[in-house]
Amino acid sequence: MNIFADNIEAMTAYVPGEQPGSTHGVVKLNQNENPYPPSPAALAVLRQFDGQSLRLYPDPMAKRFCQVAADVLAVKADRICVGNGSDDLIIMIARAAAGRGRPVVTTEPTFPFYQTQAQIEAANFIAIPANDDFTIPIDALGQANGAVTFLANPNSPTGATATTDQLDWLARRLDGLLVVDEAYADFADENALKLVDKHDNVVVLRTLSKGYSLAALRLGFAVAPPPIMAGLIKIKAIYNVGALPAAVGAAAMADRQYHDQCVAKIVAERSRIAMELARRGFTVYPSGGNFLMVALAGGGGRAAYEALKARNVLVRYFQKDRMSDKLRISVGTPQENTVLLAAIDADGIGSRQ
Amino acid sequence: MNIFADNIEAMTAYVPGEQPGSTHGVVKLNQNENPYPPSPAALAVLRQFDGQSLRLYPDPMAKRFCQVAADVLAVKADRICVGNGSDDLIIMIARAAAGRGRPVVTTEPTFPFYQTQAQIEAANFIAIPANDDFTIPIDALGQANGAVTFLANPNSPTGATATTDQLDWLARRLDGLLVVDEAYADFADENALKLVDKHDNVVVLRTLSKGYSLAALRLGFAVAPPPIMAGLIKIKAIYNVGALPAAVGAAAMADRQYHDQCVAKIVAERSRIAMELARRGFTVYPSGGNFLMVALAGGGGRAAYEALKARNVLVRYFQKDRMSDKLRISVGTPQENTVLLAAIDADGIGSRQ
Repeated sequence: MNIFADNIEAMTAYVPGEQPGSTHGVVKLNQNENPYPPSPAALAVLRQFDGQSLRLYPDPMAKRFCQVAADVLAVKADRICVGNGSDDLIIMIARAAAGRGRPVVTTEPTFPFYQTQAQIEAANFIAIPANDDFTIPIDALGQANGAVTFLANPNSPTGATATTDQLDWLARRLDGLLVVDEAYADFADENALKLVDKHDNVVVLRTLSKGYSLAALRLGFAVAPPPIMAGLIKIKAIYNVGALPAAVGAAAMADRQYHDQCVAKIVAERSRIAMELARRGFTVYPSGGNFLMVALAGGGGRAAYEALKARNVLVRYFQKDRMSDKLRISVGTPQENTVLLAAIDADGIGSRQ
Repeated sequence: MNIFADNIEAMTAYVPGEQPGSTHGVVKLNQNENPYPPSPAALAVLRQFDGQSLRLYPDPMAKRFCQVAADVLAVKADRICVGNGSDDLIIMIARAAAGRGRPVVTTEPTFPFYQTQAQIEAANFIAIPANDDFTIPIDALGQANGAVTFLANPNSPTGATATTDQLDWLARRLDGLLVVDEAYADFADENALKLVDKHDNVVVLRTLSKGYSLAALRLGFAVAPPPIMAGLIKIKAIYNVGALPAAVGAAAMADRQYHDQCVAKIVAERSRIAMELARRGFTVYPSGGNFLMVALAGGGGRAAYEALKARNVLVRYFQKDRMSDKLRISVGTPQENTVLLAAIDADGIGSRQ
């Protein structure tokens, strides 16, 4: 017999965005990484960290980090549960709440990790297609009434962002858990934090990977109402976050000026390249994230991805339904974005129609 | 209805070993932490780490770390799967292999995390009591024939250690997976690494928390045969180990001289305090770990724990079957152990009979 359960044996491994061996000379716009370095204050904490203390187990709840995050977001510290990246919290929620006889629901296209978790849990998984204009299909998500509804908001790769009012309606409509994955909320106009106070079934996920330039640190957290916090604490691995992420992450979150400056630069560049790409014949979808989804008038997303890669510009192409004519392009520094636009012009990519 | 599945709602949260707010003046022998600091070479890597690089996602497989670990352990690098502590790998295995209609099996007493994971998976959990002398009940574990058998070896809190020959027999006897959790193998005479080459159903888990003084780094790994590796890669969160643990952990493992010196000091002290405690009337169980389980002739484990705590010596008392007369005492530095023995003498703990 198989060692692993049949649903695991049947799975295929996810292929993450490519990582060049050296980033030297490569404009890397394929994983929605922040183009700016982490906060200098956070890097100072890293340099001054007392390595000797690593011999002792860390604080299971990372209370000092939670207090900083709570102050920054104006929520209560005891409503924050840390994770080894927000992936860890998605796993916890899938384990705790999937398979209740009702489906695990999300939209499509979106972050594929929700589906992976539903598969591992052998849950009934339903992916509601995005609307024709790739906005979030709020009504249909409500009708599906999942045991868990995972909604990346802003969504990746589309950039589509439901309003807080829409999420408020959805939370009321659902009997199960609404998980609003706000990995990209730093770059958006609105967020769902206030819904955690209003609804017992809303969890907001945050990460330091994007807005704080700390993808390799692995630190995320959930903001959740008390009954959901109680469940998360039971299911979380006791020491799921190390002392280094907790200390460095707290300093990064506390440095508001640096965060806000980086975000402002990225949002400004998002506007600039949206306009530049539209001028070149791309359909540019509105984005609340640090990336843009664009469609090529004549199709050929893969060919465009490959042409840009040949010029050392990495963007993301997804081989899936409705995405064959599209690219997802992370917003880089002004210099990187200018290289991107020059590469597009050199190959005449936008005007292929 | 409940937000979470009934098996989650029914769980109680695990209470980890207590962590004093300050370790100043406290002899902390309650979490089997290594009393020596991490390798100076590892701390140098931490100090020199390029914090700017944290903005990029880490290598999903931590290949550089795996190569170092493979060289040290004389195994193939592609048989190593990293985890956010070995807890992460225990979770992965529970998710992949529990609930196949056969039980999740372990011995008792042991690391409670196996049971927690079985509960979260709503698996049929069987805990085989340790033999009367607290050795590992190998025959009974074989008869139970679990879908997964988790065996901490050396076992905590007992210190009992099955021989490689016993594990070889057990692996052949089992149809399911045998997970040999070698968190404490650094301090033992034997380990099961060679069984990974011999059996398709053996996974060995290692951690840097104990032998490498890096409990707060959160880094563990599995050594597994190819079919099991394939399953672990499918189920693992893509970026489950950050760049800092991978870099610092690799340097710690590469520093053999420091590791071997620390281990030798701990093993020597384990012998010394075993003898000293036996002289004071304790029953001392043989231990392959960096700790000793001891029984008080007159019972009263909790009272002894509290008396030592009042003298700022923290040891571990477990409120469970067969443990009311016992303590688990981590091996500290010679100075710490001498403080422990003096506190025992001051309270006359061993001679209470």
